[in-house]
Amino acid sequence: MKELLNKIKAMNNPTVAGLDPVLSYIPSYILEKAEKEHGKTFKAAAQAIMEFNKGLMDALCDIVPAVKPQSAYYEMYGLEGIKAYYDTIKYAKEKGFYVIADGKRNDIGSTSDAYATAYLGKTQLFGEMDRAFEPDSLTVNPYLGSDGILPFVKRCEEFQKGIFVLVKTSNPSSGELQDLVVDGEEIYVKVAKLVNQWGESTVNELGYSSVGAVVGATYPEQSKKLRAIMPKTVFLVPGYGAQGGTAKDIAHLFDKDGMGAVVNSSRGIMCAYQKAGAPGESFAEFARKEAIRMKEDITSAIV
Amino acid sequence: MKELLNKIKAMNNPTVAGLDPVLSYIPSYILEKAEKEHGKTFKAAAQAIMEFNKGLMDALCDIVPAVKPQSAYYEMYGLEGIKAYYDTIKYAKEKGFYVIADGKRNDIGSTSDAYATAYLGKTQLFGEMDRAFEPDSLTVNPYLGSDGILPFVKRCEEFQKGIFVLVKTSNPSSGELQDLVVDGEEIYVKVAKLVNQWGESTVNELGYSSVGAVVGATYPEQSKKLRAIMPKTVFLVPGYGAQGGTAKDIAHLFDKDGMGAVVNSSRGIMCAYQKAGAPGESFAEFARKEAIRMKEDITSAIV
Repeated sequence: MKELLNKIKAMNNPTVAGLDPVLSYIPSYILEKAEKEHGKTFKAAAQAIMEFNKGLMDALCDIVPAVKPQSAYYEMYGLEGIKAYYDTIKYAKEKGFYVIADGKRNDIGSTSDAYATAYLGKTQLFGEMDRAFEPDSLTVNPYLGSDGILPFVKRCEEFQKGIFVLVKTSNPSSGELQDLVVDGEEIYVKVAKLVNQWGESTVNELGYSSVGAVVGATYPEQSKKLRAIMPKTVFLVPGYGAQGGTAKDIAHLFDKDGMGAVVNSSRGIMCAYQKAGAPGESFAEFARKEAIRMKEDITSAIV
Repeated sequence: MKELLNKIKAMNNPTVAGLDPVLSYIPSYILEKAEKEHGKTFKAAAQAIMEFNKGLMDALCDIVPAVKPQSAYYEMYGLEGIKAYYDTIKYAKEKGFYVIADGKRNDIGSTSDAYATAYLGKTQLFGEMDRAFEPDSLTVNPYLGSDGILPFVKRCEEFQKGIFVLVKTSNPSSGELQDLVVDGEEIYVKVAKLVNQWGESTVNELGYSSVGAVVGATYPEQSKKLRAIMPKTVFLVPGYGAQGGTAKDIAHLFDKDGMGAVVNSSRGIMCAYQKAGAPGESFAEFARKEAIRMKEDITSAIV
């Protein structure tokens, strides 16, 4: 998590580019080439995804500190899609990005341990150790309580990795469970307090723990409350832009040094060329423009 | 879900074999062969997993109606591991098993839609459609509320698939969030009522919906309550055996026809040969013996 905060500081940009490559987001010239080479196959989809992702990462790597590939959009293209997920993480690391694998994994302790091994740790292989996937952090779901989370925390400590625990999500129905009130406290507040507890042993010299929290931009009142409850927690903030959250809605999530949160935009950046009605060939240029606009929008709102 | 219930009835066996192939569960003669052929690599791990899984499935397919490969244990072996997951699902279908992909996936609506496409639906590929993974059902996490679940329900209706929503999990800390009481009702009860609602439109002629529930064998009092609240819901019951749940703890989950629940055993079956101190070469035989013992234990407790 320290690495993320340092990159944010160096670039003066507390944002992360989501890489959720639905084929309909990808310029037609890339799709046509892939289809021509590999037919209407998952292999063609994966090739198009990689070309698109690489173009985006090349255009963003000197101004955006982190990327967040969302696992679902790769899993839907089968094994070839998951290979593109692996390759995207690898390429992102080569380009110097901090990588948040967005998988929202969760299970009972022994199985969470396997997920933690897969994404944050090293797998035992015939007496040796190798890494299955190499992101810097992973999103996780807290519904199973501490023993579903602690295996991840253990890997954070051992391998200097991070996790982001779902606390208050950005979607319309997030309140159905998260806003229920128990003894005068919402469930998301209960989870926030657990997040503090889980992260306690991992607080770094910047004052933040390795156990972050997912807090949606679309619920500013709740996130204000959560900022106060979790002073040592880095917030991963989805919901800016396409989902409706504005810079004003999230300005209070940052501390006086402009640290403490990282705001995600996926469609906003990936599809900027479509929104502008620009030709597909200019996707990277428009992604970069939108990333700069977003950075300025957010940093000017923080002050 | 109808297909699962029919298979359970035909075999008079309401159990599912979990396929969570940690390398340490696999007989050394299989591991040694794999290592000899492919070195200390993920490829060797995947080959060993497949040989083990195939042996288990060959030994169980005429007596056990379903298998449940747990995604984490394949993801931890990287891309080769996930290929083994894909191949395990494929082989299981060929052998006639009902396949529960245990991934506990969850996200906001648009991303849940991608997961639903990946595991239950069909992916759009250059104007055509193909399936990424081919299980019959998927486990999902409810923390994000209705709009994280409804994309899965849509696929259940469209492709005759099923989901199992985490309600009350089997692990020690499951109560941290799930047992919190809101207006006199625990969170797991709130989730159970949502499960009823989500499944309402999918109830089949056997009286059960396509939206099942994960309810741990380790909490008999809570599961009794849940059975009453969710009369049309198929329960997927982890926690029997290795985690401490007994046949007596789960007998009340079944209806008078012995339907309505399916009990999982993973380590109990996979590692039966180790528990017996038997040679690795006999793993399939001991797995079969344990599956028969489990079937008799449970069916005799139901009455």
